[in-house]
Amino acid sequence: MFIHLLDILGTAVFAVSGVLAAGRKRMDISGVVVIAAVTAIGGGTLRDVLLGRHPIFWFHDPTYLYVILIASVATMLYTRYFRPPHRLLLLADAVGLATFVVLGANAASMAALPFVIVILLAVMTGVVGGVIRDVLCAEIPLVLQKDIYMLAALAGASVYVVLKMASWDNTLVTLLAMSTVIILRLAAIFWHLHLPRYQVRETPLKG
Amino acid sequence: MFIHLLDILGTAVFAVSGVLAAGRKRMDISGVVVIAAVTAIGGGTLRDVLLGRHPIFWFHDPTYLYVILIASVATMLYTRYFRPPHRLLLLADAVGLATFVVLGANAASMAALPFVIVILLAVMTGVVGGVIRDVLCAEIPLVLQKDIYMLAALAGASVYVVLKMASWDNTLVTLLAMSTVIILRLAAIFWHLHLPRYQVRETPLKG
Amino acid sequence: MFIHLLDILGTAVFAVSGVLAAGRKRMDISGVVVIAAVTAIGGGTLRDVLLGRHPIFWFHDPTYLYVILIASVATMLYTRYFRPPHRLLLLADAVGLATFVVLGANAASMAALPFVIVILLAVMTGVVGGVIRDVLCAEIPLVLQKDIYMLAALAGASVYVVLKMASWDNTLVTLLAMSTVIILRLAAIFWHLHLPRYQVRETPLKG
Repeated sequence: MFIHLLDILGTAVFAVSGVLAAGRKRMDISGVVVIAAVTAIGGGTLRDVLLGRHPIFWFHDPTYLYVILIASVATMLYTRYFRPPHRLLLLADAVGLATFVVLGANAASMAALPFVIVILLAVMTGVVGGVIRDVLCAEIPLVLQKDIYMLAALAGASVYVVLKMASWDNTLVTLLAMSTVIILRLAAIFWHLHLPRYQVRETPLKG
Repeated sequence: MFIHLLDILGTAVFAVSGVLAAGRKRMDISGVVVIAAVTAIGGGTLRDVLLGRHPIFWFHDPTYLYVILIASVATMLYTRYFRPPHRLLLLADAVGLATFVVLGANAASMAALPFVIVILLAVMTGVVGGVIRDVLCAEIPLVLQKDIYMLAALAGASVYVVLKMASWDNTLVTLLAMSTVIILRLAAIFWHLHLPRYQVRETPLKG
Repeated sequence: MFIHLLDILGTAVFAVSGVLAAGRKRMDISGVVVIAAVTAIGGGTLRDVLLGRHPIFWFHDPTYLYVILIASVATMLYTRYFRPPHRLLLLADAVGLATFVVLGANAASMAALPFVIVILLAVMTGVVGGVIRDVLCAEIPLVLQKDIYMLAALAGASVYVVLKMASWDNTLVTLLAMSTVIILRLAAIFWHLHLPRYQVRETPLKG
C-alpha cells in the first residue's frame, strides 16, 4: 500500500535527522542509533501509550527497527565521505511529517475521541520524535523555536479531521491533508517563514 | 462543583507559568502554547498513564485544552504591556498545586494501591508538569533544586491519604489537605525556606 | 529468591548513581531522592508502560521505594565524610545492569513479542533510568556518549533470548546472560574500551 511505503520513507528520513543531530554531539555509534530510533518512532509511541493502544505499533512489526538501523548505518557511512544533502532531506522530512500526521490522525480517529484530541494526537505523532531527539541532545527542541513545523502539522491534521467528518473519500482526504503539510513546510523553507517569537519583558513598557 | 473550578484555575495558572518560562527562551508562539500545555496537564497525564487509566483525563473533556489556549494567549498579550504579577501568581500557583495534589490523590486512591503509591502519584500529579516544562527549556527542573515545593505536595498528599483512611468527611479531608499544601508553600515563599542542598565533595573531608 | 536479592541490589546501586549525579548539580535533598528514584525504576517503568502491563512493577511492591529512600539517605550521609568508592560502585553497577536486563527480558518474553522487541525492552529496562537521570540533570545521557554500556546490555539480552529459544535451563540462561553483561562492562572499564564516536563533518572530505 502506498501509505505504508511513505511510512517507511518517513521512518527512514526521521532516523537520518536523528543521526545528523547526534553527530553534532560527539555520541558513540550506539547512542547515534538510539537518537535515530527515538526520532523516528517516539511520536507514534507516545500516541499509542496515551491512547492505551497495545501492542505499540512497532511491537508487532519490527520492520520499523530494521529501517532505522539501516538508515542510521547508511547515514553514518555516507557522511564520512559526503556532505548530507540538506535540501533533499528537508523535502523528505516534509513528506515524512505529512505521512506521520495522517497516520496519527487515522489511528486516533478510531478511538471515538473529540475531534480536537484527534488533531492533537496527529500533531504529536509528527513532532514528538523530534522533541525527544533534541531533549536527549540537551537542546531546546527546534520545533518549539522556529519554522512553521507544528503549525503545518496542525493544519494538515485539521484538514484530515474536517474532511473526514464531511465524509469525503478516504484517499482524497489523505492526499489533501498530506499536501497541506508539505506545501506549508516547503513555503516556510523557501520564504524563511517563522511564527512570531515571544519574549517576556522583565521591565514593563508602561503601567 | 467547587473542586472543578479550582481544577480549571490550577490548569490556567500552570499554563501561565509555562508561558513565562518559555518567554525566557525565545520560543515561537506555537512552542509557547506547547510548554503551557505540558506544564498544565503533564502531571495528570503521567499519573493516568502509570495507572493505565484510559481515556486520559483530558481526552474526554477538551475544556482543559481550551483553558490552556486562552490562558496562553491572554498571558502573551498581557505581558506585552504589563509586568507579570509575580506575587499573585505564586499564590495562584500554590492553590493550583494544592488542587492537583488532591485530585491526583483522589484519582489514585480509586485503584486500591498501597498508600505510599497513592501519595507518590498525588505528588507527581502536582509537580511533573513543571519538571517537563523545565526539561523542554533545557534547564534543571526548579522543583528539584529549591523551594519547599515537592515537600509541600508530599505533606498535603499524606494528610489526604491518612485522614481518608481514618474515614474523615470527604470535604473536610480535601480542605485540610489543600490547606497543608498552600500554607507550606506560602511559608516557604515568605520566609525563603529551602531544604538543604546536597553536594558531593570530590575530595574527602576525612578518612 | 536469588534474583530478587540482586534486583534489590540493582535498585540500590542505581539509586546511589542517581544521588551522585544529582550531587554535582546543587539539588536540594528532595530533588536528590527524585533523581535516585527515576534512575532506579525509570527503565522498568517505561518497559511496563510500553507493554501495557499494569500495575507497574513497583505499584504492588513498595519495597523498591523504601530501598531507594534508604540508599539515598545512606549515600548522602556517607559522602559527607567519605569519598564514594567509585571502583566498587562500578562493579555493583555492572551487576545491577545485568540483573535489570535479565529481569526485563524475562518480563518482556511473557508477552509473545518478536524476539528483537524482547531484546530491546530488556536493554531499555537496564539503561533508560540512567538516561532520564541525565536528562533531569540537563546533560547529554552518558550511555549515549561512551562506555560499552548499551552494547553490554544488548549482548546480555541477546544471549538470554537466544538460549531461551533453544530451551536451555532457566537458571543457566540467567547466569550466562548476566555474566555476559558483567564481563563486557568490566572489560570496558579496565581497558577503557569505547565504541567509535560519530561526528558529522560539516565540510566534505571529498566529492
